[in-house]
Amino acid sequence: MDVPQTDAMVIDTALLDRFAAIVGPDNALRDEADLALRVTEDRGLYRGTSPMLLKPGSTQEVAAIMKLASETGTAIVPQTGNTGLVGGQTPRAGKADIILSLERMNRIRDIDPVANVLVCDAGVILAEVQRAAEEVNRLFPLSLGSEGSCRIGGNLSTNAGGVAVLAYGNMRQLCLGLEVVLPTGEIWDGLRRLKKDNTGYDLRDLFIGAEGTLGVITCAVLKLFPRPVGHQVAFAGLNSTEDALKLFEKASSLCGPALTGFELMPRIGVEFTTKHIDGVRDPLESPHPWYALIDISTSDSAETAETMVHALLEQGFEAGLVQDAVIASSVAQAQALWHMRESMSASQKPEGGSIKHDISVPISKIPAFMAEAEQAVLAAVPGARVCAFGHLGDGNIHYNISQPVGADKAEFLARWHEVNEIVHGLVLKAGGSISAEHGIGQLKRDELAAIRSDIEMDLMRRIKHAFDPAGIMNPDKVIRA
Amino acid sequence: MDVPQTDAMVIDTALLDRFAAIVGPDNALRDEADLALRVTEDRGLYRGTSPMLLKPGSTQEVAAIMKLASETGTAIVPQTGNTGLVGGQTPRAGKADIILSLERMNRIRDIDPVANVLVCDAGVILAEVQRAAEEVNRLFPLSLGSEGSCRIGGNLSTNAGGVAVLAYGNMRQLCLGLEVVLPTGEIWDGLRRLKKDNTGYDLRDLFIGAEGTLGVITCAVLKLFPRPVGHQVAFAGLNSTEDALKLFEKASSLCGPALTGFELMPRIGVEFTTKHIDGVRDPLESPHPWYALIDISTSDSAETAETMVHALLEQGFEAGLVQDAVIASSVAQAQALWHMRESMSASQKPEGGSIKHDISVPISKIPAFMAEAEQAVLAAVPGARVCAFGHLGDGNIHYNISQPVGADKAEFLARWHEVNEIVHGLVLKAGGSISAEHGIGQLKRDELAAIRSDIEMDLMRRIKHAFDPAGIMNPDKVIRA
Repeated sequence: MDVPQTDAMVIDTALLDRFAAIVGPDNALRDEADLALRVTEDRGLYRGTSPMLLKPGSTQEVAAIMKLASETGTAIVPQTGNTGLVGGQTPRAGKADIILSLERMNRIRDIDPVANVLVCDAGVILAEVQRAAEEVNRLFPLSLGSEGSCRIGGNLSTNAGGVAVLAYGNMRQLCLGLEVVLPTGEIWDGLRRLKKDNTGYDLRDLFIGAEGTLGVITCAVLKLFPRPVGHQVAFAGLNSTEDALKLFEKASSLCGPALTGFELMPRIGVEFTTKHIDGVRDPLESPHPWYALIDISTSDSAETAETMVHALLEQGFEAGLVQDAVIASSVAQAQALWHMRESMSASQKPEGGSIKHDISVPISKIPAFMAEAEQAVLAAVPGARVCAFGHLGDGNIHYNISQPVGADKAEFLARWHEVNEIVHGLVLKAGGSISAEHGIGQLKRDELAAIRSDIEMDLMRRIKHAFDPAGIMNPDKVIRA
Repeated sequence: MDVPQTDAMVIDTALLDRFAAIVGPDNALRDEADLALRVTEDRGLYRGTSPMLLKPGSTQEVAAIMKLASETGTAIVPQTGNTGLVGGQTPRAGKADIILSLERMNRIRDIDPVANVLVCDAGVILAEVQRAAEEVNRLFPLSLGSEGSCRIGGNLSTNAGGVAVLAYGNMRQLCLGLEVVLPTGEIWDGLRRLKKDNTGYDLRDLFIGAEGTLGVITCAVLKLFPRPVGHQVAFAGLNSTEDALKLFEKASSLCGPALTGFELMPRIGVEFTTKHIDGVRDPLESPHPWYALIDISTSDSAETAETMVHALLEQGFEAGLVQDAVIASSVAQAQALWHMRESMSASQKPEGGSIKHDISVPISKIPAFMAEAEQAVLAAVPGARVCAFGHLGDGNIHYNISQPVGADKAEFLARWHEVNEIVHGLVLKAGGSISAEHGIGQLKRDELAAIRSDIEMDLMRRIKHAFDPAGIMNPDKVIRA
């Protein structure tokens, strides 16, 4: 038996050959050029090293890989769409982590529109799941910027959120069952299709959001929903975040679960997008300090959504909360409004460096948090341009800060950690989360350990050790072993 | 240090005195008469033994109890409303388990209608949470037969379901954060109020549904919702379970999340309730083999619910699915229809012995399962009267079987296990669950171990051992250590 070598920087060729034999030579990449895009991620923030990328074609092959890995102490990093933002899918630098890509496991195994379930391999692209659901007149509601390339395994492993969480929940609420290959190579078949099942500990929700540190998700049973027949999108100019919160309360009371989205945007975000993103125009005549993008979907009739959106804006105007507003009068107009919201992050790039945060606070604390945070950030970095936007209804704000005009980009970005500390300090004071939807990965691992109680970190470590005693499963992500 | 004595049948008085000192003598009951109602449950199906019941008044007192228990190897059984149906809250027979009752911890700590959260101790009665929410014009949607006496800690520990799961989910979906005293006496403060928080493993959902085997839940942050303004209840006579399923599909498509309940009832259930339950009358003129109770709640207006219920019944009549129907025209009528549904179980008592199952299957398989199960049960017990009813929309059927008319009750009930095997065999064949909402406790512990894969039981045991290495936390419930 080989010596455990989880932390080794090289793996001998004979061992690599044994891994390659499991998937066949065509599915075991070793050339540096082939691996180049897989040892780093889109923004180049994380760069790791890896001697090999394996592309298994079945759950059995994944199991054989994990069995060999656990016998030989070889670290394995699962990867699907490689779109994660916290370095969870990137191999460690200076180690010999093998990348296990699920891209060949991209089959929709079953779809049942009566039971409202879809069963698919972990390597299926999110947009393909959405399309497959649409073909049987159903909705799979998970929707996020990278849906054209992210894959279900990654969505599950990060408990992905996105723009429809308000009505449909995160990935944890959208999944009924899982198949998982454990670090030991055993297969847990938890592919249940049940809405109610109180039989023992919740293993499913433990694997979801574990960022590949407890096992490799290979297949999932996903929930489908009836497609809404009414859809309305409105865009409202507001004076303050206080007014935005009050308008959200009205929307929530009036629309109930028909309120599918309530997104907050600042004036500067509208300026950035109209300036830098093709086809984006300011929907309102004059500028407003804040904006709300309101999305309403109804299942009974198109009229219900129409009545709701008009009633909401009327209530908003009457209460002095809404200064001006438009309602999209066509699908194209609705898409254009959402396009502005979804381009918010991209539009910051031409403005220079941007220091980002993915935070949440209890929604009643959003106005106070936004005011305090802006003051604190400007005190530390005079001239910085706060472009904080996001899912107000979930309390989830992407608190992004663009560099001062004319400042040196590298110098500004060098203050990333310092600015993080300021913003996260206020988040924690408000009882918030330093990672609302992107996860922990490498980026926030040490910060998580610093802010959580010893007992919580200890419980997490105990779970990690119980599932992955050899410490080979995506090591040093989420927690240090 | 004392010798660990988890499995001892007696505890020495000195040790009991140490436990009593933590809560004060008034809150440490040792008299057999005082304990009589707590070592058994309502139906007398489980009878345990216990030398003492402790009523701590604070999380700190619970922590002190657990610390002493883990130091001395004393088994602790948490108990709240004592309404559980699987013996999870009952001490073991022939052992010296100490009962830890949370009844004195019954404070609503905070309620925030803007953030839609309510924070309460684990000992608060469910109906009090519902009332507190109502007082601030909000809804706490968990609703079940025992709501006047069951308490939040038990609701959480069993991941309680009830009649509004279709729209609002189980307890796991209704809880944002927890405070838990671990078996070691450490306190995990996970009282977060966030809708989105992807920071590490999902400890919350692990404690929820663990039936008190991983720790003692002492406090929870619960989700509130806007109160619906429109409410309609309809009762429809149907020819078959196939038609019931088709009608459910129509209701689900038409109403979306406004469909709050879709309950299936058999003719025999209507006969039992009209015969035995005061004030219940058959709402329809002539008998039908099956019935659906349909509950619709809307947030925007009363008219939306009214339009929906009429449209649904119209569609149902046109498609030949609905044979006859009534719509409740007052709150009293709506309550009467629900009263019939909620009396279904009680109405079986005067009919003699009843063998019960709490199962779920994928909803598309309900008609086939119901037909197969009835055939198999009647083949085994000719003359048995199947009274299967429940939450069709969740795939959750309370598959109850009343004894043949004139049969010997004890003889019939002696076949409980045999009949369970027949029904559960068909449930498993359909990919279903042997415990949809009541949990495992003692009742289904060995059956669970028999039907689950070795790897699944092993993962559960690893978690149990990681959290409760001394094996003192509600031992022998859910799994054997």
